[in-house]
Parts: sequence; structure tokens; C-alpha cells
Amino acid sequence: MATVRLLPDAELSPEAAEVFGEIRALRGTDYVNNFWRAMAHDPKGIRALWDRLKVVMAPGALDPLTKEMVYVAVSTANGCEYCIHSHTAAARGKGMTPAQHAELLAVIGMAMQTNGLVQGLGVEVDSVFRA
Amino acid sequence: MATVRLLPDAELSPEAAEVFGEIRALRGTDYVNNFWRAMAHDPKGIRALWDRLKVVMAPGALDPLTKEMVYVAVSTANGCEYCIHSHTAAARGKGMTPAQHAELLAVIGMAMQTNGLVQGLGVEVDSVFRA
Amino acid sequence: MATVRLLPDAELSPEAAEVFGEIRALRGTDYVNNFWRAMAHDPKGIRALWDRLKVVMAPGALDPLTKEMVYVAVSTANGCEYCIHSHTAAARGKGMTPAQHAELLAVIGMAMQTNGLVQGLGVEVDSVFRA
Amino acid sequence: MATVRLLPDAELSPEAAEVFGEIRALRGTDYVNNFWRAMAHDPKGIRALWDRLKVVMAPGALDPLTKEMVYVAVSTANGCEYCIHSHTAAARGKGMTPAQHAELLAVIGMAMQTNGLVQGLGVEVDSVFRA
Amino acid sequence: MATVRLLPDAELSPEAAEVFGEIRALRGTDYVNNFWRAMAHDPKGIRALWDRLKVVMAPGALDPLTKEMVYVAVSTANGCEYCIHSHTAAARGKGMTPAQHAELLAVIGMAMQTNGLVQGLGVEVDSVFRA
Amino acid sequence: MATVRLLPDAELSPEAAEVFGEIRALRGTDYVNNFWRAMAHDPKGIRALWDRLKVVMAPGALDPLTKEMVYVAVSTANGCEYCIHSHTAAARGKGMTPAQHAELLAVIGMAMQTNGLVQGLGVEVDSVFRA
Repeated sequence: MATVRLLPDAELSPEAAEVFGEIRALRGTDYVNNFWRAMAHDPKGIRALWDRLKVVMAPGALDPLTKEMVYVAVSTANGCEYCIHSHTAAARGKGMTPAQHAELLAVIGMAMQTNGLVQGLGVEVDSVFRA
Repeated sequence: MATVRLLPDAELSPEAAEVFGEIRALRGTDYVNNFWRAMAHDPKGIRALWDRLKVVMAPGALDPLTKEMVYVAVSTANGCEYCIHSHTAAARGKGMTPAQHAELLAVIGMAMQTNGLVQGLGVEVDSVFRA
Repeated sequence: MATVRLLPDAELSPEAAEVFGEIRALRGTDYVNNFWRAMAHDPKGIRALWDRLKVVMAPGALDPLTKEMVYVAVSTANGCEYCIHSHTAAARGKGMTPAQHAELLAVIGMAMQTNGLVQGLGVEVDSVFRA
Repeated sequence: MATVRLLPDAELSPEAAEVFGEIRALRGTDYVNNFWRAMAHDPKGIRALWDRLKVVMAPGALDPLTKEMVYVAVSTANGCEYCIHSHTAAARGKGMTPAQHAELLAVIGMAMQTNGLVQGLGVEVDSVFRA
Repeated sequence: MATVRLLPDAELSPEAAEVFGEIRALRGTDYVNNFWRAMAHDPKGIRALWDRLKVVMAPGALDPLTKEMVYVAVSTANGCEYCIHSHTAAARGKGMTPAQHAELLAVIGMAMQTNGLVQGLGVEVDSVFRA
Repeated sequence: MATVRLLPDAELSPEAAEVFGEIRALRGTDYVNNFWRAMAHDPKGIRALWDRLKVVMAPGALDPLTKEMVYVAVSTANGCEYCIHSHTAAARGKGMTPAQHAELLAVIGMAMQTNGLVQGLGVEVDSVFRA
């Protein structure tokens, strides 16, 4: 019960159906998750997002697992429950071990803590940190 | 001009001075950044933080560079300017290349974007994502 | 099951009951949503909030639909699920079309993305942008 | 160099001038801080805000110092530099000691940390915590 | 002094130079703001962002001024100083009057306030608000 | 259904079981809440967190109830539903009255509102507020 109805396959626009086909092909599964069924109301938006997401999350200077963990980190700081669950699952699918998950969470917690301390202290950036 | 005065070495409590010594030894530099000079007002707090930070950021199931990039991701989502600058510098010190930095930022931007879309759409978590 | 009990009409203080009457009259419906039943524990608070809300959301230099969309934007960035749902519903009630909703979400997503990029890049404000 | 010009006394509307007079009287100082000089562009807004702020921050079931510390906590989590500085100064003016400030920051840091851990772990609320 | 160096025109990659050309043409000014000079380190990223931004912010079901105000709202909730300044300036350039700006800020402030109240009260979404 | 399984007592590591014992002893109840059952996957993390939490939340320059209210304030600004519920319950357990709760929420709401106004206005910190 999102703010829009989740579209079943039978109601997809041709553009959204095409993106769904690419998602299924890339992931090797028929399952398409709720986010895309909500995004499907915007044919141009879903295409633009999917095209960019594929590029950004592909192997590059950073490996896909590292990218998923960074995704989880941002989603956690923003409190996006859906994103935390979907990208934690994606990270597991890309090989994240329980030990790596525990360390990821420990770093997130530590960063949250020092973010709070630094902001509360109002510390100004050391000039040595400037690029 | 933080919300507390940055303490020079001459005004450190013995506990804070000891932590400063450990920071200098671990980092191999005499420079101690502003955050620690602000934290130094709380002798027990600076000790607890430093001891935990050393453990959390040490090599483990995740390598130190990955941890720094996760730290940057959280700090960016929280908008902590100081933390963004200090941990981007730390990531560079641990070998982050310009290409890795660019990909890190691209993933952060993508995560921010879909965090907003998911929350605005109010999408409920797919049961397949639950642990 | 909020952090306070939602008050039924029979348990309202005279002050809260008066506000409920005004909400019903302005909205032309007997239904009063959960938020106000939670706020009703604070007779002065509910009065102050309602009085200010009526003024802020009334037609003025900006039309009521634009105001609701701005409300959705803030609530999405803050991840307030309740507010996203209630103000998306309010925007629909004031005429927001599916196409407008899709564009609203696209702008929110784009703003989230560049907020992350800008903060991660630590870009300083151009002097031409200063008032 | 805010997004609006800070208004000097000579340019205040009669409504804003009246609020400035009340601020000066209540605080016992001629100094009016930048926030109010920015808010002064909105004569009705500045009046509504000041009237409510006086009530909310007045002694009640909570004392004014506790309220200022809660204000600092919210402002820190939101990363509002101005608010952190102004309300830390206000808390000091109401008697906050360095030891209290250090403990306030420690609690804020701890809360930030467990907020991150809880969200990253996706923990569901225990039924015993529901009101 | 961002986390990357702001690139002058002479150091742009061909891809970034092409985007700069399009920015100048669309805006009718030779000035290119700092954000794009920081983004220019990522030739593919700057192209993808600019192409999508043009589409998202173009006139459509929502007019460009409404879109800029939504952008300001998100940026304010996220505390992105640069984005607040640049998009407030853009909104002014698209005709936002001082009265509209004051109302925009009032709605943002009201949304922030009720976001906090709703979350602190833990109110569950009324079923009538579900799509 | 968190991102990790909640561990029952029978599956705890010796280190986690020891922390659970201390939680039960300090709180005088056999009930251990979900957060700790999720944290129990990280034996060193749960120990470090519990040891620091006990110190930070203990009576000191600030009393435990004030600390719980500050915790609620941070958690509300971060939108951590679990933390809001658990620490509101903890504050009630330490004597928070309904009147105090109402004032706490009013201050949080006011801070959220002025955080938004201040950031949207881009107000620079008055030099008098600097430490």
C-alpha cells in the first residue's frame, strides 16, 4: 500500500515492460521487486533510473560488493527501511559474509557517532584536509 | 571557533595527552586534528572513542579503505562537512584513486536518489528481502 | 500504537474538542486523522499548531497544491512515512494528477542525488548565489 | 550573506520592530541575532514564531536548561550549524557547565550510533515498548 | 577548497567541455558554477547528470518555478547549504517573489515541525491515506 | 524480520550471553529487547556498546531522565522508529510524566521548525555565539 499502486505485469506500459525484461535478464530471475512496480507509473523515469543504475553499480574502480555496502551505509543514515533491506539482501547476494556485515554496521555506527560529536562540537575543517 | 575551545597540547589533561600520544604513534605524524582537540575536554570520552575507533577501523573482514569509504558515505548522507573532508583525506591516504572517488560519489548520489524515490513512493519491503 | 494513546472523541479535553470541531468544519468531513488524536494530549499545543497550520497552508502567494507538494518534499527528505502518506493524499485531494506526482518525485530524487554529490564534493557556495 | 538580506533596525516593518522590542526586553540585551534579522522579512511569520517560541521554551514541566539541551540535540542530528551554536550559547547562558556539555554530547553521540545500528539491523519495535 | 579541485576550462576533458558548452547555451551566460567544475572530474557522470537534470527540471506537468521550490525544500531538509543557495537563486531567476519565498520557508518550517511531532508520537498511517 | 535473525538465548555466544546477563541484572528484568538480540551476532561489538552505554547513560552531571529525553530528541530527528519507542518507554520508566513528554515533543517540534527556517535562510553564525 504505497502512495501509488504497485503495477502488475499486465498493466505495464511498453516502456516499463521493456525495463522489466532487462531487469529479469540481468538478474536471472523472474521476480521484480516492489520498487520497480511503483516506479513503473513513470515510463521515462524508470528507463532513466535503470540505465544509470546499471552503469553506477557495475564493476569498475570499485567492486560491486563494495558499492552495495556503500549503498547500505547511505540508506541507513537516511533511515530508508526499504533500501536497507533490499541492498543488504543484494550485498549478501554478492558475497557479503556475516563478519563483513557486522563490520559494516560497526563502521556505520561509529561514523554516525562521530558525525554527531563533530557537529555538536562545531569543529572547523583542518586546512590539511582541504584538497 | 567550535562550541568549545580547541585545546593546545599544553592544556591537555594527562588522559587526553596519553590519547594524543597514541594518535601520533599510530599515524606516524605529530599533527593532531581539530576534532581531537575539541574532544579533549572529556578525558573519559576521548579515551573510549579512540579505543573503539582503532578497533572498528582496523583491518578485518573489510579492508581499511573500504571502511573509510563507508565512513564518507554516512558522513555525506548526514551532511557532516568536517567528517567528509577528514575521511576523504583518510581514504586518499589509504590509496583511494580519483577513479574510485568518482565511483564512490556516484554510488552515494544514486543511493540518495533512490532513497528519496522509495520513501516518496512509500514502498513496502518485499518479503523476499527479509532475513 | 503510537508513543501515546490515540484519544477517541469521548476523551478529548474541551480545548482539543474545539480544535477537532474546526478541523471537521474546514475539511467538510467527520474523519479526524490519527495525528490529531495523538496531539490531543497537549491542549495548548494542538491549538497553536492548528492555528498556525491553517494560516501557512492557506492560499496566498503560493497556491495550496504547491504547498502540499513542498510538504511532501520535506517529509520525504526527512523520511517521515506518516507525513508522506497524509500529504500525498492531501495533494491528491487538491488536484495533483498522476503526472504531477511523477514529476514531483523525479525532482525530489534529483535533489536528493545532487545534495549527496555536492556534500560529498564539499563544494563551496559561489559568491554569485549569495543574496 | 544569507539567502535574504539581514535587515537592520532602520528597515524593520512595524510588526517586526515590535517583535524585536520584545526580544530585547525578554533577553535584557540590545543585541538581536542574525536569525531574527532574516526572519524579519515575514512580519506575520516572525510574530507567530516568537509567540510560540516564548511559550515552548518557558519554564514548565521541564526547566529551560533541559529544553535548550534538547534543542541542541535535535539541531545536531539535523546538522544545523547556526542552531547548534546559538542554542549551545543559550544553554551556557542558562547555566550549562562544561561537564554537562560533555555529557550532552556523549549522549547525542551514543544516540546517533545506536540509531545507525538499529536502522541498519532493521530491528522491529518490541511490543512491550508500544504505549 | 572542495574535496576535489575545481577544474578551470583549460583542464576540462572533451566530454566535460561539451557539457559546459550546453550549460552555457541553455542558461545564456558564460558563468559555470562550482558544482559543475567539481563534477567535471567524472566525464560520464557529468554527462549523465546534466542530461537527466535538463529533463527533470524542464516545463512539464509542473512548471519550472514549482520544481525549483521543491528542490529548495529537499535541500533544506537535508541541510545542503550549497544547494539551498544555488536553487534559491535559480528560483529567483525564474520569478520567485519575496512573498513566495517567505511562504515557501513557512511551509518548510511547518513540515519540519510536524515531521518531528509525528515521528516523536510514533503515529501509524491512517488506512484512508493509503493509495 | 530484521536484516539479521534475532538470536534466542540458546544460540548466544558466551560473550553475548555474558552481556545479556548484565543487562538483566542492571534492569531487574528477564526481558531482553530485540536490539540486543540483533547485536548479539557481533560478540565484540555488543560488549563495547553495552560497556559504553552503561557509562554514558549513568547518573552524572546530567540525570538519567534528561539523558533519555535527549536520546528521544536525537532519535526523532533521525526518524529511528525503534529508538523513539524504546527510549520513550525508558524515559517513562525513569519518571517522565505526560506533561513532560508533551513539552519534550513541543521543543523537538520547535527545534525542527527553526532548523528548517535557519537552513533555508542560510543564516551565518553570529560571532557572539562562537566559544
